[in-house]
Amino acid sequence: MSEVRTKAALAKQAAATLNRMTTEQKNDALLRMADALIADQNEILAANERDLARGEENGTSPSLLDRLKLTPDRIAGIADGLREVVALPDPVGDLLESFDRPNGMHIEKRRVPIGVVGMIYEARPNVTVDAAGLCLKTGNAVVLRGGSAAIDSNRAIVETLRKALASTALPPDSLQIIEDPNRSSVDEMLKLNGLLDVVIPRGGAALIQNVVQNATVPVIETGAGICHTYIDDTADYAMAEAIALNAKVQRPSVCNSMETLLVHEAFAKRHLSALADSFRAKSVELRGDSATRNLVPWSNSATDEDFATEYNDYILNVKVVSGLDEALDHIRRFGTMHSECIVTETKENAERFLQEVDAAAVYHNVSTRFTDGFEFGFGAEIGISTQKLHARGPMGLPALTSTKFIVTGNGQVRG
Amino acid sequence: MSEVRTKAALAKQAAATLNRMTTEQKNDALLRMADALIADQNEILAANERDLARGEENGTSPSLLDRLKLTPDRIAGIADGLREVVALPDPVGDLLESFDRPNGMHIEKRRVPIGVVGMIYEARPNVTVDAAGLCLKTGNAVVLRGGSAAIDSNRAIVETLRKALASTALPPDSLQIIEDPNRSSVDEMLKLNGLLDVVIPRGGAALIQNVVQNATVPVIETGAGICHTYIDDTADYAMAEAIALNAKVQRPSVCNSMETLLVHEAFAKRHLSALADSFRAKSVELRGDSATRNLVPWSNSATDEDFATEYNDYILNVKVVSGLDEALDHIRRFGTMHSECIVTETKENAERFLQEVDAAAVYHNVSTRFTDGFEFGFGAEIGISTQKLHARGPMGLPALTSTKFIVTGNGQVRG
Repeated sequence: MSEVRTKAALAKQAAATLNRMTTEQKNDALLRMADALIADQNEILAANERDLARGEENGTSPSLLDRLKLTPDRIAGIADGLREVVALPDPVGDLLESFDRPNGMHIEKRRVPIGVVGMIYEARPNVTVDAAGLCLKTGNAVVLRGGSAAIDSNRAIVETLRKALASTALPPDSLQIIEDPNRSSVDEMLKLNGLLDVVIPRGGAALIQNVVQNATVPVIETGAGICHTYIDDTADYAMAEAIALNAKVQRPSVCNSMETLLVHEAFAKRHLSALADSFRAKSVELRGDSATRNLVPWSNSATDEDFATEYNDYILNVKVVSGLDEALDHIRRFGTMHSECIVTETKENAERFLQEVDAAAVYHNVSTRFTDGFEFGFGAEIGISTQKLHARGPMGLPALTSTKFIVTGNGQVRG
Repeated sequence: MSEVRTKAALAKQAAATLNRMTTEQKNDALLRMADALIADQNEILAANERDLARGEENGTSPSLLDRLKLTPDRIAGIADGLREVVALPDPVGDLLESFDRPNGMHIEKRRVPIGVVGMIYEARPNVTVDAAGLCLKTGNAVVLRGGSAAIDSNRAIVETLRKALASTALPPDSLQIIEDPNRSSVDEMLKLNGLLDVVIPRGGAALIQNVVQNATVPVIETGAGICHTYIDDTADYAMAEAIALNAKVQRPSVCNSMETLLVHEAFAKRHLSALADSFRAKSVELRGDSATRNLVPWSNSATDEDFATEYNDYILNVKVVSGLDEALDHIRRFGTMHSECIVTETKENAERFLQEVDAAAVYHNVSTRFTDGFEFGFGAEIGISTQKLHARGPMGLPALTSTKFIVTGNGQVRG
């Protein structure tokens, strides 16, 4: 059997044991994992050095090398992340519904682990630990397939975590890492129906699209965000400027940052020139429609392709619209249903926007940058779902559970 | 543009309007649809006659022709089904979570329509109306692709329903039917990411597997059930016999009927011969393992292939097991995670079975035949999910909804 199939089968066996673990047993395992990361940090840092050296040889960009790099401080932070998951409530076993039927049978719907989760991600070793912690806390086994650029780090981390599990009630086989660096190992994971219960991709658009297009295993799609902020006629200027700047420049590289600013024509006449200067002061390139370019002559011109692009960079599209309806149309056409904001003092417009925009998170007078499991207070995040099934928006621990109907009676048969 | 893409795009446009409809508007539409089915029944019956005549020419089996056949009584029943959906609570808008964050922003999580649902099913015209009613009640547009053997009936039904919608607040384009009888129209639907938000297959194993294997659109898998009943050492004989017979013969053709009976060896010694006679009296063919054949010499022999087969017929596999652990192993190996039952008077064994068996519905001393939206009291059923994401088990109206986070504030930005 291939590495992928062998390890997924071991994970599935382990999942049958994990299903029986108590919250205390799972928390004990997470704490031991955290301690082991600190205890083994020299081995992990040495493995990480090999990844970094290989990355430098291969001409990897400094920003990617920085994502890959581990330090004692970063390992301590990753270990603390595991300890924080210990403190979160365990959703497994939660009673969601409970009712009796006229024939006397009693039905409960309870949260249960999903089973085996496949994680496909890029070269960030912290995701290896995060995913392991969140999956084990929810009683799931996990098959990890990180980017090949981080393979030495990930192998060392998983070896440490599995060693830690050996002294707990949880089977070490709950954690599996795929070492085969070829793309074919990803493709094989995507077709493992019966062994993997779900695949969660985390990374850039190409990685996610490969998973969505090729998986026969159910997928939770995460990621792509072409987010808009619409500034309405009645918006407060200071608030609109603060929200728009925050949505663009506080961290442009992430999915909940703004790519396109839509501005009501009346507001634009009064304020767009000043607002554009504020973006220029933050080194943001503006790409505008013709109305924008009339008001902001130094802006470049925006094409439909620009409106459909997730820059994740210091670039912003700007479009002047006749009002709420045109803003809604634009978002319907170009949005990725991630996070969308209206800034307005007009209550009816806010209500229409919040109802009519079809997105994971809709905002009134709040920056889109808050779409995040920690900012929402979930205490953890396995990703941000941009699909509509199972989970939508920031996914905390409950998103890693399924449900089961438990029916008890005294001999009921169907007539 | 192809028929499929054109109609899906119209459905998507309609979904943006449906999203704003009130419960009253949706209920009004369903009542008018019910009335229209009765008013137009002559046209519908005439179309159905054409399907039936074509089916007879093609040598379609009597049981399939019966599923296809409409009568005034059946149309009245289908219309009543729509009226029953009117009486059900509308899940759209339901507040699932509500909380404030330290920065003063308020977050609500509410149910919203999924958007556009694709239904792929076989030649049962009642599914056309059921799916239309359940999707519209939850604010979803629907693209219907029924079996080609029912195309005249389905076309007439959808024409009637769309005509009824024209006099309501709901856009007629909310209901689309694909008329292209070629398999390629199904294949095209499965890849319509961006237009369809989910595809739900309903039908036999081949139809469902085609959808699961080829869809890039998210799927809710329904259907296949290899269900077991395990009779434990301490089971009450009369109860065990009643439950086992009911699970097999009350309606063998459906997914929640039993395919394999697992019997504790001590119970088998005392009772298997008598129990087998009861199945024989109901014309059930038994296929047993060697221990079963020793106790029931007239039974045929069961292979692993038999244990992996969903008969949906008067055939039953029987296996004698040493106890609960062997029963759990067998279910883990051959079960399809649909519905599984233990009959026992031993509380600890019941608890272990209910926790450790990984299935949509687990039963203690109750027949597996109850896995059904109506039997569970949901008042409707779009199908029975056998996957673990989004919905698991019988799916009522809430399974046809997604969620949205609605965030309101007064200028919050991320620091």
